[in-house]
Amino acid sequence: MKIGFIGLGHMGAAMAKNLILAGHYVTLFNRTSGRSRALVQLGGHEAPDIAGACHGEAVITMLADDVAVADSVLEKDGVIANLPQGAIHISMSTISVALSRRLAQAHRQAGQRYIAATVMGRPDMAASAKLFILAAGDAAAIDFCQPLFDALGQKTSNIGPEPSAANLVKLTGNFLQAAVIEALGEAVALVGKAGIDRHAYVELLTSTVFTAPAYKIFGPLIAEDKFEPAAFAAPLGYKDIRLTLAEAENLRVPMPVAGLLHDRFLRLFAQGGQELDWSAIGGLATQDAGARQVSATSSMSSAN
Amino acid sequence: MKIGFIGLGHMGAAMAKNLILAGHYVTLFNRTSGRSRALVQLGGHEAPDIAGACHGEAVITMLADDVAVADSVLEKDGVIANLPQGAIHISMSTISVALSRRLAQAHRQAGQRYIAATVMGRPDMAASAKLFILAAGDAAAIDFCQPLFDALGQKTSNIGPEPSAANLVKLTGNFLQAAVIEALGEAVALVGKAGIDRHAYVELLTSTVFTAPAYKIFGPLIAEDKFEPAAFAAPLGYKDIRLTLAEAENLRVPMPVAGLLHDRFLRLFAQGGQELDWSAIGGLATQDAGARQVSATSSMSSAN
Amino acid sequence: MKIGFIGLGHMGAAMAKNLILAGHYVTLFNRTSGRSRALVQLGGHEAPDIAGACHGEAVITMLADDVAVADSVLEKDGVIANLPQGAIHISMSTISVALSRRLAQAHRQAGQRYIAATVMGRPDMAASAKLFILAAGDAAAIDFCQPLFDALGQKTSNIGPEPSAANLVKLTGNFLQAAVIEALGEAVALVGKAGIDRHAYVELLTSTVFTAPAYKIFGPLIAEDKFEPAAFAAPLGYKDIRLTLAEAENLRVPMPVAGLLHDRFLRLFAQGGQELDWSAIGGLATQDAGARQVSATSSMSSAN
Amino acid sequence: MKIGFIGLGHMGAAMAKNLILAGHYVTLFNRTSGRSRALVQLGGHEAPDIAGACHGEAVITMLADDVAVADSVLEKDGVIANLPQGAIHISMSTISVALSRRLAQAHRQAGQRYIAATVMGRPDMAASAKLFILAAGDAAAIDFCQPLFDALGQKTSNIGPEPSAANLVKLTGNFLQAAVIEALGEAVALVGKAGIDRHAYVELLTSTVFTAPAYKIFGPLIAEDKFEPAAFAAPLGYKDIRLTLAEAENLRVPMPVAGLLHDRFLRLFAQGGQELDWSAIGGLATQDAGARQVSATSSMSSAN
Repeated sequence: MKIGFIGLGHMGAAMAKNLILAGHYVTLFNRTSGRSRALVQLGGHEAPDIAGACHGEAVITMLADDVAVADSVLEKDGVIANLPQGAIHISMSTISVALSRRLAQAHRQAGQRYIAATVMGRPDMAASAKLFILAAGDAAAIDFCQPLFDALGQKTSNIGPEPSAANLVKLTGNFLQAAVIEALGEAVALVGKAGIDRHAYVELLTSTVFTAPAYKIFGPLIAEDKFEPAAFAAPLGYKDIRLTLAEAENLRVPMPVAGLLHDRFLRLFAQGGQELDWSAIGGLATQDAGARQVSATSSMSSAN
Repeated sequence: MKIGFIGLGHMGAAMAKNLILAGHYVTLFNRTSGRSRALVQLGGHEAPDIAGACHGEAVITMLADDVAVADSVLEKDGVIANLPQGAIHISMSTISVALSRRLAQAHRQAGQRYIAATVMGRPDMAASAKLFILAAGDAAAIDFCQPLFDALGQKTSNIGPEPSAANLVKLTGNFLQAAVIEALGEAVALVGKAGIDRHAYVELLTSTVFTAPAYKIFGPLIAEDKFEPAAFAAPLGYKDIRLTLAEAENLRVPMPVAGLLHDRFLRLFAQGGQELDWSAIGGLATQDAGARQVSATSSMSSAN
Repeated sequence: MKIGFIGLGHMGAAMAKNLILAGHYVTLFNRTSGRSRALVQLGGHEAPDIAGACHGEAVITMLADDVAVADSVLEKDGVIANLPQGAIHISMSTISVALSRRLAQAHRQAGQRYIAATVMGRPDMAASAKLFILAAGDAAAIDFCQPLFDALGQKTSNIGPEPSAANLVKLTGNFLQAAVIEALGEAVALVGKAGIDRHAYVELLTSTVFTAPAYKIFGPLIAEDKFEPAAFAAPLGYKDIRLTLAEAENLRVPMPVAGLLHDRFLRLFAQGGQELDWSAIGGLATQDAGARQVSATSSMSSAN
Repeated sequence: MKIGFIGLGHMGAAMAKNLILAGHYVTLFNRTSGRSRALVQLGGHEAPDIAGACHGEAVITMLADDVAVADSVLEKDGVIANLPQGAIHISMSTISVALSRRLAQAHRQAGQRYIAATVMGRPDMAASAKLFILAAGDAAAIDFCQPLFDALGQKTSNIGPEPSAANLVKLTGNFLQAAVIEALGEAVALVGKAGIDRHAYVELLTSTVFTAPAYKIFGPLIAEDKFEPAAFAAPLGYKDIRLTLAEAENLRVPMPVAGLLHDRFLRLFAQGGQELDWSAIGGLATQDAGARQVSATSSMSSAN
């Protein structure tokens, strides 16, 4: 397929590469220049502006947040102004439900098609084309884009006809991960202060019944109180909790754990933790316990 | 080995059976009679009282709570009064850190050995000898009991020399599971009220990145708002959160999510939910949202 | 003084009346017509539009929320467009810190003066000119307006030169009142379920050490579980908690009680409680306790 | 009346003095000796042991906590063992509902009478005989003791026939005060970080609508972040929140603000704050905001 790709951050660059390698004709645009070079060498094409990335059957946006997406899509010289009638905008960024609805309406009015296709998975999964893709919108449009999704991920789930549902599912996925971070943070604070080896504790959990990636990824970081460099920066995690809460507020759904996570992020930022990984909120329970990694009085071993 | 086994509830009966099938000489005792019959047919031996179960090299207790364990161990005619010098009491019940410490001291004074060996896994895992065993206490005693653990589980983790550490690790494991229940409850309440199919949502989560058993077991129950019959009754889950909080209080470790879970259980009980599965606390967020399973306006399908 | 007065709701009408009775020349405007009649009979003058209320030395706005204030002030044909250079806009509505800042800037650019003068007190205090006035902005402008404040309230506090500070202080005042509602709700739920007479309990509190108006006003409502008619509607209380949290978020200040109050309002609305008094959130603890006004088993009396 | 008085701490000594000055025949006992000297000079009598304080028509206990009361009353050589049949034990300490029930039963079995008469008010109010007294139990016994209460306080409220109700009301009173501390702490953290003068803010609140003693006492301490010396030590405040939560748990009443307060105390103790005044939990919100008393950019003044 002939497509455009806007947004070449950690995730976007890895995804664009896989699309090029799968044989698609990909025209790239990134607001900050210089990010396309390696991709052009692999066969990608560079566009000087957004308009230049809007000449194909579809254009993908993979940008940081609502502001970046609104700027690139809704402003003059943006995607809406340049995409041909009938072409598809595939919005893959983690954005708010409200913005996704605005985009859907704007594309409809412009005679264009719009689907949301959010992704679960970290940059390494993007690189190995192992993302999980959550697609929502017109079924025919999703089907049409399936070859693209096949180049990006291991599985595509169709969330239904309302595009913003894919955004909400993605946001709640990050909420669930942050909830794991907080709960692990509390548990590790407790066992650590009890004199149990924190690393061995996490190893035990993740090798028995807490086998999901979130436990394996965040557990060791929390055990070690080591939150840099950031794989997913705290402000991004905070953004997703805020957007989850925004929709919860809109729909009148009290979410006390989400509220707690929101406050944890505020506190982290008040302490100057903007540069840390989002799992740093999992270190606050240890801080509250007045304990920074109590030296372990016991060690663990396993027999099976 | 020649051992005693006290406590033949759902978990205990399944575990005793595996010990018998593994060739150990097992003398059984249960306060309520009639539970041993099937096990005797498999080769077990029935004791008329606790003393009768204390003639071997070790005695296992697998009882409901602190009260049952204290009654069976510390009272006159209990394990302390009957176990030979040097024999081992293997405490496998989910009890408080404080009681585990008291037991350790009482056995030490009586010249007996004491280890805590708590288990992770539900009755089906007990039945198939797939439990995860968390053993703590004197290393030689644990080694000596390894053949028993091998008959019961797929893996034994040695938590160190302080027996009560195994109790605390077990309690925090249940705390982490309850935290999954609450977070899932909030997420499902939100997406459900947004018109997304709750079952499809849970299916999507558990087939992508939320692959740990807790998500797979509790997710469908929450999606369906179906919390009976109870696999693990709410009062038992509540007990474990209370015991976690008791040790958190003792060690001065604030655990806000645990506090929230505690209040969720109180509210469930105030509503008459004592008979429900503990995952019923995951239904309260939907109740707060004023929504009981909003009929879905979208359905999901997957391509991979 | 010759002034305009925009916004004749419960509070505004009572305040405008006192300004007229104090001898000021007051030109009135309300978006919904018919509210000025009684005030005109007392000596007020009616304006056909906002411009008509902007001919004096100052214009007061006393409107429901950010949207109403932004519409009346910032839109074309609004206050900014019509107020003479050097005249003063006295913003007395409970609005966000952010909007107050925008207004200050817009007036500065238009060569007009702007002060915020928020009020504490319910309609009966407005009627009896007993409001507490929190004024912030240019000191000379506040001094100039003091005769107006004297006609409206029993005391004016000068919060300093930054107008939005008066808005923040007002918002936190309502937060503190809502916190009283929640705490009373929890305490009444507990003593009520313990069989203590709820009304006698509240009477005891308010006649001893909980003598502030909030306890005396909300205590009886909570004891009786009677939240209509609304003296201050729940959506208005919710708005103030949201605006408090908005500034807390902006300044990175975690406020867990405010977060709890926010969720209480969401739940109240999810139950259909939009028409109730804001103290209705104080009934949710009793609901959580599964108890609706347990019939009292004891009564109280006092001797002094 | 001829009475005994057990427990001569800050509160007890002030109360015993007023009883002596009112002309009652008071026999004093305190576990730590040396506390009675000044009181003996005023006309009090010293007892060498608890038995010596149990010869009158009534005996008052005013002790620190459940342990001290249980020791002095239930142990051999305690009040139960020494009080004459028909004499009255007036329990004035802040103790648990459960212990109050145990005492009632023990006295009933011993043929003695028991009432609970808890007090609201700080040591200065005890000194000036301005306490508020919350009495519960047999009405005739309360009437009989009224002359004692008249010597101690400004008002006696009869809570009903169940003695433990007086204990619960007292505990919830301290819960409501702690809730004021927390809410004030959050509000002061917010306005302080916004650059508003914290002291002026508190002065404004307490001179307008937040006129109850709790605001006036704790507000200035929080504004100044000055929590020593302790007027009411944090461990005592924590004890009362724990006892409130214990009864809430017993009766199945979720109290989220009480849970939050509990965690605030744990955190304070984890930081080493055991010696501070209980209002120190009101300083944690400022700590969370990463702000220690931001220097004010505005000052306030009042005109009335």
